[in-house]
Amino acid sequence: MQIRDYKDADWPLVWPVFQEIVVTGETYAYDPGWSSDEAKSVWEEAAPGHTIVVCDGPRILGTAKMGPNRSGRGSHVSTASFMVASDARGRGAGRALTEYALAWTTEQNYAAMQFNAVVESNHAAVRLYQALGFHIIGTVPEAFEHPVLGRVGLHVMHRFL
Amino acid sequence: MQIRDYKDADWPLVWPVFQEIVVTGETYAYDPGWSSDEAKSVWEEAAPGHTIVVCDGPRILGTAKMGPNRSGRGSHVSTASFMVASDARGRGAGRALTEYALAWTTEQNYAAMQFNAVVESNHAAVRLYQALGFHIIGTVPEAFEHPVLGRVGLHVMHRFL
Repeated sequence: MQIRDYKDADWPLVWPVFQEIVVTGETYAYDPGWSSDEAKSVWEEAAPGHTIVVCDGPRILGTAKMGPNRSGRGSHVSTASFMVASDARGRGAGRALTEYALAWTTEQNYAAMQFNAVVESNHAAVRLYQALGFHIIGTVPEAFEHPVLGRVGLHVMHRFL
Repeated sequence: MQIRDYKDADWPLVWPVFQEIVVTGETYAYDPGWSSDEAKSVWEEAAPGHTIVVCDGPRILGTAKMGPNRSGRGSHVSTASFMVASDARGRGAGRALTEYALAWTTEQNYAAMQFNAVVESNHAAVRLYQALGFHIIGTVPEAFEHPVLGRVGLHVMHRFL
């Protein structure tokens, strides 16, 4: 398993991962109707942001993007988003991506990392982030329409770097 | 004092309000380097969002924008942003805009309204939102670089509609 910078030629392998996750609809408030081009423009972070992939040989297991959470007077706080293909889970790809994002944003001199919308029923993600030092700042009630559970909360999570 | 829909021809009068607030830098994590066109594209909400102005005769005292806070499975929660010119404060323009936004989003069948980044030292805004039924979900510490106070927190605020 290896992490490297995303490049334009990766999109045909990243798009199925993106699509599977958004269509399953349990973790992202993204529009499942987005075209490949629309999704690509959401996922490819322009500078000063950064997009990466985690690979197993030629196969892309997952991807992450990171950058400033806000502009101007909020741009010292970073944010990041992660996706791992369902059949690649349980092998540490999510942890590897998150640790990479923390190292990269620390090196870029961000003061903190903030997640704006962690679905509270996504226990694997919440546990991972907590294990990596994130705290739940608060939970916006009923803010995510889960396809099985109905409306569940969205955690705001944060850690200093 | 009258509230009406924003129209394209309003921008020359909205832009000085926007610019004053962003340059003063006490309430918005927007980039003060944005051009008029960049600011315009941020402030003019495309459908299903909505932008309004509050006027006193020909003068624009303030403005607000509103729409979905997230896409897809988060699009039942609205958000809104408000700006009032410094020399028009204390006359209820901010309250009038906020009440309008609550009425409009209720009519559009949103389930709630969420503010993602209320600067905690902006006491007038925090008090107004609380008076209108919003609760502080949590406060992201040191997330806003205040020009006088240094790094202060950003409240996430919420109310059901």
